[in-house]
Amino acid sequence: MYRLYGVKKWGSLGPQCILEEVGAPYEMVWLSAEDRRGSYRKINPLGYVPSLQLADGRFVFESSAIVTHTTDAHPSALAPRPGTPDHAMYLSWLTWMNAEIYSTMNAAEFLEDEGNTVGDAASRASLAEAVRAKVDGLFDIVERHLGGGFMLGKVVSAADIYLMMVTLWTRPNRRALYERCPNIGRVVAAVNARPAVVKVLALNDLA
Amino acid sequence: MYRLYGVKKWGSLGPQCILEEVGAPYEMVWLSAEDRRGSYRKINPLGYVPSLQLADGRFVFESSAIVTHTTDAHPSALAPRPGTPDHAMYLSWLTWMNAEIYSTMNAAEFLEDEGNTVGDAASRASLAEAVRAKVDGLFDIVERHLGGGFMLGKVVSAADIYLMMVTLWTRPNRRALYERCPNIGRVVAAVNARPAVVKVLALNDLA
Repeated sequence: MYRLYGVKKWGSLGPQCILEEVGAPYEMVWLSAEDRRGSYRKINPLGYVPSLQLADGRFVFESSAIVTHTTDAHPSALAPRPGTPDHAMYLSWLTWMNAEIYSTMNAAEFLEDEGNTVGDAASRASLAEAVRAKVDGLFDIVERHLGGGFMLGKVVSAADIYLMMVTLWTRPNRRALYERCPNIGRVVAAVNARPAVVKVLALNDLA
Repeated sequence: MYRLYGVKKWGSLGPQCILEEVGAPYEMVWLSAEDRRGSYRKINPLGYVPSLQLADGRFVFESSAIVTHTTDAHPSALAPRPGTPDHAMYLSWLTWMNAEIYSTMNAAEFLEDEGNTVGDAASRASLAEAVRAKVDGLFDIVERHLGGGFMLGKVVSAADIYLMMVTLWTRPNRRALYERCPNIGRVVAAVNARPAVVKVLALNDLA
């Protein structure tokens, strides 16, 4: 039995979809944004979600690591087998979306979160604008990569579900992104039609 | 045959150590910082290093993804087997070091790299200071995790080699980090005594 610690609509959403997709038994522990500053820091020192507790009690951090472990440990059509060239591309895109898109979106916020102030209000606005422009450029790379297909080629994979998750947080909103990047919009629509994803979106108040 | 694109002392150093450690055949393609802004963008749209070209011609991005694929495809004592709980912890720490330590170190630089200006000189200095403080806190987490052991427990793994790499870029310098965090210093010393690592450090002008 896994235990997944998360916040509704946050970075636990993708891992939760994958646990549902592969039929792995798990218990969901919902945290509030405030809980992340409290005793949860004993589990995850930065207060980040998600954390996945394994059956042996250890905790796995980073959403792309949780997704990769889940598909490695529970083989399905959602992901290639470890050690293959296709799995290398799967690792590449998952890690890239985590380390580039997700981390860039969080850059300004989490620097402040730790009590470090970054310049005055005007420079914080300038940082937020630089982050938005960089994230737009990252989604443009994904849009060109997709062409008429999916993240790993001709069929939906766990990487497409991860992509759907990171689009949720786009500024000004995800619908503007899907309009600007129709390939991303098409992939997200295909992901959102899957029964396991429909269930998890509802559990995250995103019905 | 793999082909690894990198810049001396940059993020290709860890993956190069792992390729040497497992004895995988590879060709090194050295780029200058300027090359990253030229035709290399056709390979890696952001101009980031490293990129690993697979035998089938495809390119794997993100240093932790390259390290994970290399140890998944070439089993050795350096990493646990995919799908096991130990491999979940390996993915967790590698991805965390990539997405948190490495990406935070690069945050200010790469926002500017794309031509976005972040406030005035004073606020850029303030951002650089916030980055330095956050990175110190991340290394403190690693220091407490290590205790008297290594990243994955009692023996050296590819995660320790990755840790050695990210310490190279510490401000003001890595020796100050090893003094402040003696467990990290001890692990790096053990890593740097390995013949494959000695060879790669020399190839990166870090003898």
